[in-house]
Formats: sequence, structure tokens, C-alpha cells
Amino acid sequence: MGQALAGAFLKAGHPTTVWNRTASKADRLVAEGARRARSVGDAIGAGSLTVVCLTDYPAVRELLDADGVDLDGAMLVNLTSGDSAQAREAARWAERRGARYLDGAIMAVPPAIGTAEAMILHSGAQADFEAHASALGALGTVTYLGADHGLASLYDVAGLAMMWSVLNAWLQGTALLRTAGVDAGTFAPFARQIAAGVAEWLPGYAEQIDSGSFPAEVSALETDARAMAHLIEESEAVGVNAELPRLIKAMADRAIAAGHGKEQYPVLIEEFGKPAGD
Amino acid sequence: MGQALAGAFLKAGHPTTVWNRTASKADRLVAEGARRARSVGDAIGAGSLTVVCLTDYPAVRELLDADGVDLDGAMLVNLTSGDSAQAREAARWAERRGARYLDGAIMAVPPAIGTAEAMILHSGAQADFEAHASALGALGTVTYLGADHGLASLYDVAGLAMMWSVLNAWLQGTALLRTAGVDAGTFAPFARQIAAGVAEWLPGYAEQIDSGSFPAEVSALETDARAMAHLIEESEAVGVNAELPRLIKAMADRAIAAGHGKEQYPVLIEEFGKPAGD
Ligand SMILES: NC(=O)c1ccc[n+]([C@@H]2O[C@H](COP(=O)([O-])OP(=O)(O)OC[C@H]3O[C@@H](n4cnc5c(N)ncnc54)[C@H](OP(=O)(O)O)[C@@H]3O)[C@@H](O)[C@H]2O)c1
Ligand SMILES: NC(=O)c1ccc[n+]([C@@H]2O[C@H](COP(=O)([O-])OP(=O)(O)OC[C@H]3O[C@@H](n4cnc5c(N)ncnc54)[C@H](OP(=O)(O)O)[C@@H]3O)[C@@H](O)[C@H]2O)c1
Repeated sequence: MGQALAGAFLKAGHPTTVWNRTASKADRLVAEGARRARSVGDAIGAGSLTVVCLTDYPAVRELLDADGVDLDGAMLVNLTSGDSAQAREAARWAERRGARYLDGAIMAVPPAIGTAEAMILHSGAQADFEAHASALGALGTVTYLGADHGLASLYDVAGLAMMWSVLNAWLQGTALLRTAGVDAGTFAPFARQIAAGVAEWLPGYAEQIDSGSFPAEVSALETDARAMAHLIEESEAVGVNAELPRLIKAMADRAIAAGHGKEQYPVLIEEFGKPAGD
Repeated sequence: MGQALAGAFLKAGHPTTVWNRTASKADRLVAEGARRARSVGDAIGAGSLTVVCLTDYPAVRELLDADGVDLDGAMLVNLTSGDSAQAREAARWAERRGARYLDGAIMAVPPAIGTAEAMILHSGAQADFEAHASALGALGTVTYLGADHGLASLYDVAGLAMMWSVLNAWLQGTALLRTAGVDAGTFAPFARQIAAGVAEWLPGYAEQIDSGSFPAEVSALETDARAMAHLIEESEAVGVNAELPRLIKAMADRAIAAGHGKEQYPVLIEEFGKPAGD
């Protein structure tokens, strides 16, 4: 990922200094015009913006906490994946050392970096983001989420949860339809249409959550729960996996047991918002 | 739902005969111009097309198996919800009695019936569907899925699984973001964009399933699994429900344990296609 990021800066015409623990991995970038830093400290001192992308936050700390690394006055953008607590803690740590710090999350694979397809999320001081948004724009479609440094990580895992859930529901449906000899290519456009259609409901459903009121304008949760039972029975009857159907129903059943059967689906936020069993 | 269906036929100008066990529930329709049948047998004999929509398949059987009901030559469209085995069995039963039979599933709520928003799925003999597609079109957007009478039920639960999964992933993300003070309305457009974007991948991913080959063109399953661990950790750390994240990872972990870590996400079809533990 580091190579893809530096390559995108180079391609956009930014003077780019690179450093990697295993120096040889930067050879191609140097051949393409990057300057090779002698040390981490040298790399940080070289430009107005330092993008860090390592395996994880402990690796970032280990690297930046070494002798000879002066963060005072540096502008760090940490695109390493981690959780919101690590991001907030890294921000406090870097700021204590005199650095400005933006946290970021890359929702893209390396080949997409440098194209509009690459979604890159940022959180931290808005002024820092705005000062560097144009340079960061060389990496992909950059978005600013807010001052809380934990936001990029939270949006990242929330977005991934959506991605895996759409894929899993499609796989559940594909598995069901294959038992009737329907191939995946035949079912996929139907699944795509439903997913894209339901996506459009989310802003409206969000209003119910933000107002804390869940009238069953379209359908009551207990009606959904009856259809969920069909999904489980059908999955079991045709011999496909029924764990996702059972989880779907278990969440709804808990909300119904808590008295929300006549309310609408978004009332499930109360179940999603607390650990199981609470 | 029966009232909504009959009302849509009336509104489209079709001569419509109605029957309901509790006769008074048809009063409004009769006032709007429907003819009230004296009996179920009378209702079936009245027109060229009989739409049935009751609580469940046993109710349909009880009703149509009664004395004085002659199905010979009838064209039945059963829009009652049920599973694929019930639909296939109902088709055989009706056909033995000389009826033509289409099974159907309504993916809509009563107020949407009669508008293009109401998606109504049909399966059975294509000639029967084509002969009545124009009349059935008064009910909503009607789709023909194939000759297997079980298909409407299978697509129905598969579509619902997609709907609940998009909603659940959105609720998971909303719960995560609320811990950082982000309201549902702020997060919803992001969730919508991801869901709609991932929906577009499905036809391409389906090609991998149909070819039985899952090269990691974009990302390997083991890379996904590492990010899934972040989703679980984050959910646990901020104190929201972690069951959906854990299920997501458990499915991937099983595929990785089966040797598919270097392949791409759709390889999970092998896990979704069999009961847990097989
Ligand atoms: N690849 C993707 O598809 C993708 C997508 C989105 C986000 N990300 C995130 O991007 C980050 C990097 O991913 P990647 O795919 O580039 O991983 P990678 O290929 O494993 O590279 C890890 C990098 O971290 C360096 N590193 C690890 N520990 C270090 C230490 N203690 N001191 C100094 N350098 C250290 C490695 O240096 P050496 O070369 O010397 O080992 C290497 O440059 C991760 O947080 C990942 O989650 C990746
Ligand atoms: N409502 C929705 O949002 C919706 C959406 C999609 C699909 N569906 C499906 O549509 C079907 C009907 O749903 P609904 O909402 O109309 O349910 P409902 O309001 O409970 O109506 C059930 C109907 O079935 C009749 N019935 C039940 N058992 C009977 C029997 N043994 N003999 C004769 N009639 C019998 C009832 O007659 P009485 O009036 O005499 O009780 C009533 O007309 C269900 O399969 C449902 O899953 C509904």
C-alpha cells in the first residue's frame, strides 16, 4: 500500500520522499523519481506532509518513537488500519510531540490508489485536512469526517460491515437459488436491485433513529419476523447454511420481546447498540 | 392484502369477483363495483383468472379442497407466502384437479399494490404467465422467474435476506458511529453509497461462482478476515452488539480453514451452500 500511495503522489507531480524499513522495496519508486530518505527522521523533515502506512499502530509507534525522529512541526497523516481508540491515542501521542495529526482509513486496494475509485477517509482538525486536501486528493476520493480522530476507523469498519453483509446476503440467496438450479449470474441482477433499492431507504429510516420514534409506516417488526421464519425454514429445508437467517431473526425476536413488535425495523438500533445479553 | 389486490384489479377496470371467509371484509370492494361471490366455487367459476391470497398454504388447501369447489379448467395464481416445497406441492395438487397453477410472491405492502413499486414474482408454466401477465400487471411490477413453481418463494426469501442484511449492517454501523456522537442521519448517506456500490459488484462476482474459480483479483479472503477482526474488536471496545461481526468472521474463517484464504470472497459460497458443521 505504501508503494501505491507514494506512486500516486509521484504521478500527480508532487516531489516525493520515500522510506521503507526494507529499503529495496522503494527501488521502483526511486527509479520513477522519488527521493530515498536516509532515515525516518530525514523522511519526516523532507516535506510539508508525511503519510504513514504500516501494518498496524504498534508498528507506527515503534517507528516514530525511535531516536533521531523529531515530530515537532510535522504534519502526519496516518493511513494505517486500526481501531478508533488507537487512532485517538496516536493523535494525542503525536500532538504531545508537537506534530499535527490526521488519522485516515483507506477503503481501497492498492491498484485503485490514485483513482477516484479509492475512497480515503480522514478525521482530525478540519484546518489540517483543508490545508492538505488538495495534495491528499492525489491518492483518491478523500473525505473529511470530523474532528474526532476515531471517526475514520469507525466509518471504515462500518463500511466494511456493509460490504460483507451485502455479499453474505447475496451468497445466502445464491445458495438458496442454486438448490433450484438457478445459477449465480441469473440471481445476481435481482440481488443487486434489492440491495440498491434498500440502500435508498436508509436516510429516511435514519430519521426514525434520530427522532427516537419508530411508527410502522411501512411494516411492523412482527410482520418481518414471520417472514424471517420462512427464510430459516426454507434454508433448512433445502439444506443451505441457516446461521445468517437465524441471526437476523434472533435480533428481531429480542426487539419484539422488548415490546417493539408493532414498531418499524429501525427500532432494532436498541439491540445493535448494546452487547448481546444486556 | 386480498383487499388491496382486488382493489387494484377494480381500479384497472377489470370485472372483479371477490370472496372472503369473513364476508363483511369485502363490503368496501363491493361498494366500489366488485361482484360478491356466493361461494368459493362460484368465485372460481366467475372469471378466467383466480388470485388466491390467504394466511398460509394449509389455509389455501383447506379452502380449495372443500365440497362444491371445482378446479377443473381454473387458472389459479396463488400469492400466499410460503416455502418452495409448499409451492411445488400446491402446483401438483391443483394440476391433478385439472387447474392451471402459477405460484407467486408479493414483495410489497398492501398500500403499494397497484403501483410499479410493488414487485410481484411468478413461477410456473411460462405460457400461463404470458396469457395473464397483462391482467396481473394491474397489481404491480410482475416478473416471471421460471417453470419451477418453487422459484417465487425462493427469490422472495432471498430478496428479504438482502433487505434485512442491508438494514442490519446499517444498524451495526449506526450503532458504532453513535458511540462517537455521529447521528444516524449523518452516517446514512455513507452507508447508502457503500451498499449501492457493492451491489454493482454482484454480477461480476457471480461469474466466479458460476465458473467455480475464485482468483483474488481484487482482494484475498485472508485480507478480509484481518479487517473483520478489526470490526469485532471495535464493536466490543465501544460496547455495541458484536454478533453480526462475529458471524461474518466465522464464515470467512471456515473458508480459510478449508484452504481458501488466498481466493476471493465469493468462494464463501461453499460455506453458505451447506449447513453449519458439515
Ligand atoms: N493492501 C490492502 O489491500 C489494504 C487496503 C486497505 C488498507 N490497508 C492497510 O494499509 C496498511 C498497510 O498494508 P499493506 O498491504 O501495505 O501491508 P504490507 O504489505 O504487509 O506492508 C506493511 C508495511 O509496514 C512496514 N512495517 C511493519 N512493521 C514495521 C515496523 N515495526 N517498523 C517499520 N516498518 C514496519 C513493512 O515494512 P517491510 O517492508 O520492511 O516489512 C511494510 O512496509 C495496513 O494497515 C492495511 O490494513 C491495506
Ligand atoms: N400484509 C403484507 O404486508 C404482506 C406482504 C407480502 C405478502 N403478504 C402475504 O399475503 C398473505 C395474506 O396476508 P394478509 O396480510 O392479507 O393477512 P391477513 O390480513 O391475516 O389475512 C389473511 C386472510 O386469509 C383468510 N384465511 C385464513 N385462513 C383461512 C381459511 N382457513 N379459510 C378461508 N380463509 C382463510 C382470512 O380470512 P378472514 O378475513 O375470514 O380471517 C384473510 O382473508 C400472507 O401469506 C402474507 O404473508 C402479506
